[in-house]
Amino acid sequence: MELDVQQGRMTTGWAAQAPGEPLRPWRFARRELRPTDVAVRVTHAGVCFTDLDHVRPEPGQERPELFPLVPGHEIVGEVTEVGSAVDRFAAGDAVCVGNIVDSCGRCPACLGGDQEFCREFPTLTYGGHDRVDGSMTQGGFADEYVVDQAFAYHRPAALDPAAVAPLMCAGVTCWVPLRTWGVEAGQTVGVIGIGGLGHLAVKLAKGLGAEVVAFTSSPGKAAAALELGADEVVVSSDEEAVAAQRERFDLILDTVPRPHDLSPYLTALRFDRTLCSLGIQSPMLFDPQALRFGRKRLAGAGSGGIAATRELLDFCGERGIGAEVEVLPAAEVGTALDRLAANDVRYRFVLRM
Amino acid sequence: MELDVQQGRMTTGWAAQAPGEPLRPWRFARRELRPTDVAVRVTHAGVCFTDLDHVRPEPGQERPELFPLVPGHEIVGEVTEVGSAVDRFAAGDAVCVGNIVDSCGRCPACLGGDQEFCREFPTLTYGGHDRVDGSMTQGGFADEYVVDQAFAYHRPAALDPAAVAPLMCAGVTCWVPLRTWGVEAGQTVGVIGIGGLGHLAVKLAKGLGAEVVAFTSSPGKAAAALELGADEVVVSSDEEAVAAQRERFDLILDTVPRPHDLSPYLTALRFDRTLCSLGIQSPMLFDPQALRFGRKRLAGAGSGGIAATRELLDFCGERGIGAEVEVLPAAEVGTALDRLAANDVRYRFVLRM
Repeated sequence: MELDVQQGRMTTGWAAQAPGEPLRPWRFARRELRPTDVAVRVTHAGVCFTDLDHVRPEPGQERPELFPLVPGHEIVGEVTEVGSAVDRFAAGDAVCVGNIVDSCGRCPACLGGDQEFCREFPTLTYGGHDRVDGSMTQGGFADEYVVDQAFAYHRPAALDPAAVAPLMCAGVTCWVPLRTWGVEAGQTVGVIGIGGLGHLAVKLAKGLGAEVVAFTSSPGKAAAALELGADEVVVSSDEEAVAAQRERFDLILDTVPRPHDLSPYLTALRFDRTLCSLGIQSPMLFDPQALRFGRKRLAGAGSGGIAATRELLDFCGERGIGAEVEVLPAAEVGTALDRLAANDVRYRFVLRM
Repeated sequence: MELDVQQGRMTTGWAAQAPGEPLRPWRFARRELRPTDVAVRVTHAGVCFTDLDHVRPEPGQERPELFPLVPGHEIVGEVTEVGSAVDRFAAGDAVCVGNIVDSCGRCPACLGGDQEFCREFPTLTYGGHDRVDGSMTQGGFADEYVVDQAFAYHRPAALDPAAVAPLMCAGVTCWVPLRTWGVEAGQTVGVIGIGGLGHLAVKLAKGLGAEVVAFTSSPGKAAAALELGADEVVVSSDEEAVAAQRERFDLILDTVPRPHDLSPYLTALRFDRTLCSLGIQSPMLFDPQALRFGRKRLAGAGSGGIAATRELLDFCGERGIGAEVEVLPAAEVGTALDRLAANDVRYRFVLRM
């Protein structure tokens, strides 16, 4: 299907025409509004590692069938038009959209609000396949996004819109495990890696009342982690300092995407507690004895469904929690990707569209 | 310390004098009874894979410092003598002893009855170090065992003594995760591997009211697994049959000690559910995406403390649950080890001492 000549609402996005190509302006068509769709004028879009992985894949990981590709799945904007059956939004509403824009709606996961685990796999915000016409979805680095109202969210009015964008993927990815494992006052939470995800994990765990320890490989990030609200910082290359954390934590969130030895962190858990990996590490490296002794649990998680996203936005709106962002104009998306690849960001780039 | 000339209660055990050596009768001394000790005339001792690993280690895994070594940590017998302060047992009592015979008694794990996770590491029944005099413990393939009354258990009178022995290690290893994850009627439990551990996992999960599915690599074991009480058998080499189990299980117990791909079993779990590995697999092999999608948990466990062991023995006594055993005279311990190494046992060898 030639997306750039199809019928529809023409818009301009920042697209890579092939894997590894730079993002350049590209005219393409969004679908015409269906009865339950809203059209969103995008004002901000966060830049996620997933975007980098898509447009600058590792050798052997290229997926040319997805191109031309417009990335972006941490979207903030304003409703400009609504379909005939839309009842949750009106033109002018401040909204946001995350990394899931549709799901089957009938499986147990969808019915429970956990659309991220839809039995038929959820439709992703870009690089997914529209469940109605089969066309490929294109992301939020664009002037306009069209989405079913079920996957649009009211933006908390109290927050800076740029600071909201990263909540839509990084934020909910941290929020879901914090809620799944019942984090609350009196508990101690460890966060490994203080980047786009990790800095939000620190803020959210503090917001829930936990004592928070940040593990960072960069001694230079220690002061900044304390400023984010961490009660303590442990430099992860200091083996003795890590070993001293034995049996301390109720939950550890690991946000580091590179494979690294999880054993010292399993040892740092209290008995029957969980280390949840949010970065995609393959393989996961650990000594099985570190899992066995103390009946520790290793879990994976990522993204979140409608119920969790709504709850997160309410929570952040009430507590005034937003991401720490560096805002760049959309034309500087290449710089944002370069610096993200070099880990040179505190803590998330957001493009102003 | 020359154990065979030290002061103490002389007894005869089946010892390997060095790694890889056959077990032969050996005279050695047990400690004299301390005030809270009981002396046990051993009548039966189960043969565990751990015994095999100790006396016939893989190349590079030898631990010559542990030899001469008497294995055996699934012990059943009769009290013959008690120390001056013993109040839980009297001479003539039927008792059993498992794979832990002491612990610090002060750490949170010990205080909670989870001595298997003692912060100072529990004292093992053989190859451990006595916490009082530092001597090495020697196991239950012997005429007598001496143990603190806290780590001796009343044997359920209703059960065949030989069938009780394997409960003391294999049984409690399965029991602890079934209880930790709250298995009860209405739940579905998978058991991978129908051997010494697995056959008890099936019986215990059924006893708790769960629907039980046995995964076995041997089509020939299917009928036997149904006889043990499994509601269904899946042959694990049948990829389609395993894939059809998607999102079915509340808990899966993996009793296979060899590394194998855990991904299909993670996929077979319901969301937020747990695969608990009881065999020691190193490394654990799985696709992290199988863990992430559905927020699955991978856990390790093994052995059990005083609280769980007492509970298990009460449960088995009430329900008439014992291990399926093949009883051999102690002199045939070599045959038992040979056949165990060849996986030729249904389901546990027990030596008659």
